[in-house]
Amino acid sequence: MNRREFNRAVLAAVGGSVIASGQTGQNIRVNGPRIVEHLTALSQFGKNPQGGVSRVAFSEADRQGREYVMGLMRAASLDVGIDAAGNIVGRRAGSDSSLRPLVMGSHIDSVPEGGNFDGDVGSMGAIEVAQTLAAHKLTTRHPLEVIIFADEEGGTIGSHALAGEITDKQLNLVSSSGKSIRDGIKFIGGDPDRLATIRRKPGDLHAYLELHIEQGGVLDSEKINIGVVEGIVGITQWEVKIEGFANHAGTTPMNQRRDAMLAAAKFIEAVNRIVTSAPGRQVGTVGKLQAWPGAYNVIPGKVILGLELRDLDAQKIKTLYEKIRAEAAQIGTATGTSFEFTETNNIIPAPTDERIRKLIDETAKSLGLSTKWLPSGAGHDAQEIAHLCPVGMIFVPSVAGISHSPKEFSRPEDIANGANVLLATLLKLDSITLRV
Amino acid sequence: MNRREFNRAVLAAVGGSVIASGQTGQNIRVNGPRIVEHLTALSQFGKNPQGGVSRVAFSEADRQGREYVMGLMRAASLDVGIDAAGNIVGRRAGSDSSLRPLVMGSHIDSVPEGGNFDGDVGSMGAIEVAQTLAAHKLTTRHPLEVIIFADEEGGTIGSHALAGEITDKQLNLVSSSGKSIRDGIKFIGGDPDRLATIRRKPGDLHAYLELHIEQGGVLDSEKINIGVVEGIVGITQWEVKIEGFANHAGTTPMNQRRDAMLAAAKFIEAVNRIVTSAPGRQVGTVGKLQAWPGAYNVIPGKVILGLELRDLDAQKIKTLYEKIRAEAAQIGTATGTSFEFTETNNIIPAPTDERIRKLIDETAKSLGLSTKWLPSGAGHDAQEIAHLCPVGMIFVPSVAGISHSPKEFSRPEDIANGANVLLATLLKLDSITLRV
Repeated sequence: MNRREFNRAVLAAVGGSVIASGQTGQNIRVNGPRIVEHLTALSQFGKNPQGGVSRVAFSEADRQGREYVMGLMRAASLDVGIDAAGNIVGRRAGSDSSLRPLVMGSHIDSVPEGGNFDGDVGSMGAIEVAQTLAAHKLTTRHPLEVIIFADEEGGTIGSHALAGEITDKQLNLVSSSGKSIRDGIKFIGGDPDRLATIRRKPGDLHAYLELHIEQGGVLDSEKINIGVVEGIVGITQWEVKIEGFANHAGTTPMNQRRDAMLAAAKFIEAVNRIVTSAPGRQVGTVGKLQAWPGAYNVIPGKVILGLELRDLDAQKIKTLYEKIRAEAAQIGTATGTSFEFTETNNIIPAPTDERIRKLIDETAKSLGLSTKWLPSGAGHDAQEIAHLCPVGMIFVPSVAGISHSPKEFSRPEDIANGANVLLATLLKLDSITLRV
Repeated sequence: MNRREFNRAVLAAVGGSVIASGQTGQNIRVNGPRIVEHLTALSQFGKNPQGGVSRVAFSEADRQGREYVMGLMRAASLDVGIDAAGNIVGRRAGSDSSLRPLVMGSHIDSVPEGGNFDGDVGSMGAIEVAQTLAAHKLTTRHPLEVIIFADEEGGTIGSHALAGEITDKQLNLVSSSGKSIRDGIKFIGGDPDRLATIRRKPGDLHAYLELHIEQGGVLDSEKINIGVVEGIVGITQWEVKIEGFANHAGTTPMNQRRDAMLAAAKFIEAVNRIVTSAPGRQVGTVGKLQAWPGAYNVIPGKVILGLELRDLDAQKIKTLYEKIRAEAAQIGTATGTSFEFTETNNIIPAPTDERIRKLIDETAKSLGLSTKWLPSGAGHDAQEIAHLCPVGMIFVPSVAGISHSPKEFSRPEDIANGANVLLATLLKLDSITLRV
């Protein structure tokens, strides 16, 4: 279709209205090799001898990586500052100063012994989009912001500071760097006493876009170019305590046991069966388990394990949990044990904006790329910013679905594709009004 | 039956020959309340405020308890000494000094936070039998020995020193007391440099009898007075390593997981199913488990667990293990994980002497007591002494099968019954020749 038809299609798809714009930049593309160069340079900060990177938030490696990134942002003609939460904010004025900012962002902090793509791809991608616009002397209508959020891996701290309140309790938590979050924010140039000044209200931003690696293996195994993220799943975690009766493993006949480990085994199997029996893309995991007293020759009297359920639909999490509770009660009766569930964490699902999803999908297809709609099983800064404005997320494939590992890898062509979708989607979003 | 008939029955049963004896003591009985008094007095050494006792071998409580016990032994007209391994040995000459010693024994050390019956009942019972014989001025034909073995709970150290070699490695192990076994033996009056001098050869002893609490719940639940122990089960332990692939619990779809925890759960269920499906009294336990990395939000990539199988028949342990291995291989294929088994401990079964079993059974029935033949699922000093001479073990009920716990309890009447069976069986054994 030609440009006019495309704009009409966009209009139909997003339910907005195209505002006249002098330069649409429909045919410009990012410089893919430059993104890879920047990723390679960034990977030196916190590089591990055995591969991958440990650039945990608030570490010296993080501070140095941020310096490097601020240089890239200045080279992309952004006005760079550090806000009170330690977020790096790069701004460029739009042609209409009455409009609200259009924001791209991600993070450059890593988990301990992480990889070089989680966060980095979206950060270098957003900066590349800004640089490409500058190189083509394209000015967006909306003010443009690129935000490199502080401490994403430690609990989306920087983005949460924009969208909500960082409590004293959170500030006092000790991060992976060894510093408290409060001291860490100071270390990277923020001011934890002035967090209230940077908080934004719903409607303060036009829209938010984030490019990210999938961190799962769906796109890679199905050979899809672009993932259109339907939202960031909700996460509920429970501590499950199973109590039986500790007894001598030699003298207690099999039919007189109240074995908390056997009950835990039946429970773990039941969780897997219940989660995989329902249609959909929900996941359920038992990732940790401790048994007491924990000896070869004693039947465990107590087990504590961690249960986690994730789905885009909070109601589905609830339904699965109820089935799991019911089955746990049966296991308890059959094994002479008792189950106790304590909810330890609950993050509600954050759907992306349906209009932006459609826009990403159309844009990717117009670039000749295949797409798949899917939830994000991992948390992202976008879930915080979703409290403030319509958000969209673009996924690129993670080879073999590996993430949070030195083996994390995304192919250069996939990264370039993702950045081009980010650029084109940004320009479309710049041209429309989104009714909130 | 009358006494003559009984003796004939014993003869037929044991395949031995009754040797004339001036005093048979057939109608004498132990003083049950005195055993309970002694148990109560002994329970003060290492008493825990919250109940039960921590009289671990080589502790000050152990040393004081042993002093108390040596006093009781002297009062029972035994010549008391401490051997090089720290065993307390009480001797009384028999009427025929050419005969080999007839031995009763058990231990008074406890596990940390243990109870007041495991070991103590057999120790106080053996001393009571010696005291009863002395009170009735009965002299056995065989020299009589009562041995209170050192450090049973730490690995049947004292009895092993009589029957085999305590290695330097064992002597250097740190016991629950905090002392090495070497220093512990010195602390209680032994001499670890002279262990070779106390070692006995097969055939050096006439027979060995041990009274003990069952530590399981069979006798109690079936309301049986006396357990005739068929032997001490063999124990084989394996460390089982399960390797999958650690991955993000949010982004990895259920069908792309290689979840070592799920594989472990299926394995634990399989062990239970295989062990309970075969006829017999074998037991199988998974008592310990660790998962890596061990977080709510990471699919475990590695699990290490402990597997233990016990049975009186080593061949049955082997057969069960082969079935478990085969099923583990299937689980590995189904879950994308691998299983690796490392044998970490192997104690071969120690059957009791069949003639002595029959003697205990007949003796108990002649006292009007009900009996049941059963294996001992727990280890005992008797399994070491079985290398030296025919051994027999007499069990009395443990209420609710609880052991190694402050809740451990055996009723006074059951203890008295057990000591009377010990006394009567000892006298029968004294009257016969056992062909080795």
